[in-house]
Amino acid sequence: MSSWTPIHVPARDQAALTQRLQHVLDHKTKPLGALGQLEALALQLGLILDSETPTLQAPQMVVFAGDHGMAARGVSAYPSDVTWQMVENFLAGGAAVSVLARQHGLALTVVDAGVAKDLAPRAGLQIRKIAAGTADASQGPAMSRAQCEAALAAGAEVVQGLPGNAVLFGEMGIGNTSSAALLMARLTGTPLAQCVGRGTGLDDEGMKRKLAILEQALQANAEADSPLAALAAFGGFEIAMMCGAMLQAAAQNRVIVVDGFIATSALLVAQALQPAVLQRCVFAHQSDESGHARMLAHLQAKPLLNLGLRLGEGSGAALAWPLLASACAILRDMASFDSAGVSQSER
Amino acid sequence: MSSWTPIHVPARDQAALTQRLQHVLDHKTKPLGALGQLEALALQLGLILDSETPTLQAPQMVVFAGDHGMAARGVSAYPSDVTWQMVENFLAGGAAVSVLARQHGLALTVVDAGVAKDLAPRAGLQIRKIAAGTADASQGPAMSRAQCEAALAAGAEVVQGLPGNAVLFGEMGIGNTSSAALLMARLTGTPLAQCVGRGTGLDDEGMKRKLAILEQALQANAEADSPLAALAAFGGFEIAMMCGAMLQAAAQNRVIVVDGFIATSALLVAQALQPAVLQRCVFAHQSDESGHARMLAHLQAKPLLNLGLRLGEGSGAALAWPLLASACAILRDMASFDSAGVSQSER
Repeated sequence: MSSWTPIHVPARDQAALTQRLQHVLDHKTKPLGALGQLEALALQLGLILDSETPTLQAPQMVVFAGDHGMAARGVSAYPSDVTWQMVENFLAGGAAVSVLARQHGLALTVVDAGVAKDLAPRAGLQIRKIAAGTADASQGPAMSRAQCEAALAAGAEVVQGLPGNAVLFGEMGIGNTSSAALLMARLTGTPLAQCVGRGTGLDDEGMKRKLAILEQALQANAEADSPLAALAAFGGFEIAMMCGAMLQAAAQNRVIVVDGFIATSALLVAQALQPAVLQRCVFAHQSDESGHARMLAHLQAKPLLNLGLRLGEGSGAALAWPLLASACAILRDMASFDSAGVSQSER
Repeated sequence: MSSWTPIHVPARDQAALTQRLQHVLDHKTKPLGALGQLEALALQLGLILDSETPTLQAPQMVVFAGDHGMAARGVSAYPSDVTWQMVENFLAGGAAVSVLARQHGLALTVVDAGVAKDLAPRAGLQIRKIAAGTADASQGPAMSRAQCEAALAAGAEVVQGLPGNAVLFGEMGIGNTSSAALLMARLTGTPLAQCVGRGTGLDDEGMKRKLAILEQALQANAEADSPLAALAAFGGFEIAMMCGAMLQAAAQNRVIVVDGFIATSALLVAQALQPAVLQRCVFAHQSDESGHARMLAHLQAKPLLNLGLRLGEGSGAALAWPLLASACAILRDMASFDSAGVSQSER
C-alpha cells in the first residue's frame, strides 16, 4: 500500500490580482455587479488559476467507489451490490454522471477505492482497492489507520496522474451518507440527528434504525476526534481517497468542484487538515439530503445550484460545470465599456 | 405595419404521455426522484416536445431592443443611448449574452423593436422598428393600440421565421424595468412599491424619483386595465414584440425559456391573453430585481437558477440552457434498472 506523506496546501495572498480581476469585472459592459454570483465565481477562478483570463483545461470527473460494512445493518434503502452494479453502469455510460460528463466533455475516471466485488480492469477504471469494503463502523473503526493513510495516498496519486486544471469529485457507495453524517457530527459538533438524512430514500422506520446505528458508531469510536482518526473510524475508503485527491488538487492549484453531501464530507476532513483547501473549492449545489445545507453553512459555502438533487455520483458537480465555463468566458471574452464604446452609469 | 391576428394557444391534456414519461424517469438508475427539479424539467420538456426522447433543436436566442420615452425622466441609472450602444455590442459579440450564446451554441438574433437611433442593417439584426422609442408613459399611453398590435404581429413573425424547437427570450431597453413594474402592478394588482426595483443600479434618491414617476404613469393610464391596453399604456415596443413572439412560440409548441424581470413581464401579458402559454415556459432564473420573485410567485413558477443576476439581455436564460439539455439527455440516454442490471430499492 502507498504511504501517506501529509500534503501542505499554502494559503495564498493574492491581493493585487484580486484588485485587478475586480477592476476588469467592474468595467465589463454591464451594470456593476449585475452578473451576481457569476462574478464572484469568475473572480475566484481567476485567483485559483492565477490569471486575468482563466481557461479551464481538460476537466476531470473522478468518481470514487467503495463499500461499507455498516450497510449490512440496513442503513440504506439499497443493497451493497448496487455499488459495483453502478460502477459497471458508470463505465457502460448509462448512469446520470456518465450522461452529464459526456454532455460537458468531462473525462470520466472511476476509481475502485474499496468495492466489495472484484471488478474487471478496463479503460476508465482505476483499481486502487484498499480492501473489499470497510469494517462495520458501529462496532469499531471502519478502517485501520494504515488503510486510511493508504487511501489518502492513493487519492493523491490519482490526481497526480490526471491532466488538466480542474477536478470534479463524485462518489458511489451504498451506506456512505452514514459515513458522511458521522464525519459531520464528529468534526463540526452538530447533533447527530441534524446530520442524518434519508439517503437514497429511507422511510421513517428506516430513518429511526439508521439514527440508532449511527449513534452506536459514534459511541464505538468515541476517541476518534482528530480529522484522520474520525476519517478512519467512520470511513469509507471512497471518502478517504477523495480527501487525499482533494488535498493533492488543492496543492496543485486545480479548481476543485465539490458535489453533494458525501463529497462535502470528504472536504470537511481535508479542510480540517489544510484550511486553505477551501480557497480552491467551488460548491456545485445544495443537496436535498437534509444535513447538506448545514454542512455548507459550516464551511461558509455558497453553492451554485439548488435543484433538490440527492443522487451523488458527481451529478451535481457536472450540472454546475457550464457555470464555471461561463464565468471564465465572461472574464475572457466580454467587452469593456471602453472597448465597446458604451456609456457608463450617470449616477 | 403588420396587422395582429390574435394567436390561440390551446391547453394540452397529455395525461397518457405524462404517465409514460414519469414511468421512464422512475425506472432510470437512480433513487426515485433523486434528480429533483431536473426530473420535473425533463417531464415538462417531454410534454412540450411531445416525446419520450425529446431533443432540443436549433435553439434561438432572440433579443428585442427598444427605447422608452419615460427614460428621459430619469427612471434609469443609464442614458437611453446605451440601448443602441448595447445592440452594437450584442452584434459585435462583446456583451454577456453574446459570450454565453456562443458558449452554448445558441443562434443569436437581435431585433430592433423600436430603438431611438437608426441601426445599420447586418446579419443577425432584424429591423422591425415600430417607432424611434415609445412616448412617455407618465403622460399617457406609451404607444397607440395600432403600434401595440403591430409590435405583437412583428414578434410573431420573428419566431415564425426562425428554425428550431426552443426560443430563449432576452431584451435591452434603458427604462424597461419601469414598464415591467407598471405591467406587473396593473395586471397582478400588486402595490407599485413592491413592483419597483433598482434596475441597473439606482441609488435611494433615484428609487424615490422612479417610484413617483411610475405612480404618475399609473394615474395617466388609469383606464388601461385589459392586458393589451396595459401593454400599450406602459410599453415598451420590445416587451410587446416579445409578447407576440412568446404567443407564437407557444402556439408552435416550442420550448420558451423565460429570462428575468422584463421577459417575465412580457409573459405576464401573454398568459393573461392565453393562459396555456405557461405550459410551454421554462423559467431560467430568479432575478435580483426586487419585483421578480413576486412576479414568479404570481405565475407559480419555479426558476432553475438563483444567482443574483440582474442584467437582462437573456443572460439568465443562456446560463440556464445547459440544464435543459441535461434534462433531455437524462431522459434519452440514462439506463434503466433493467437495462443496466442494477438492483432496485429493497424498502
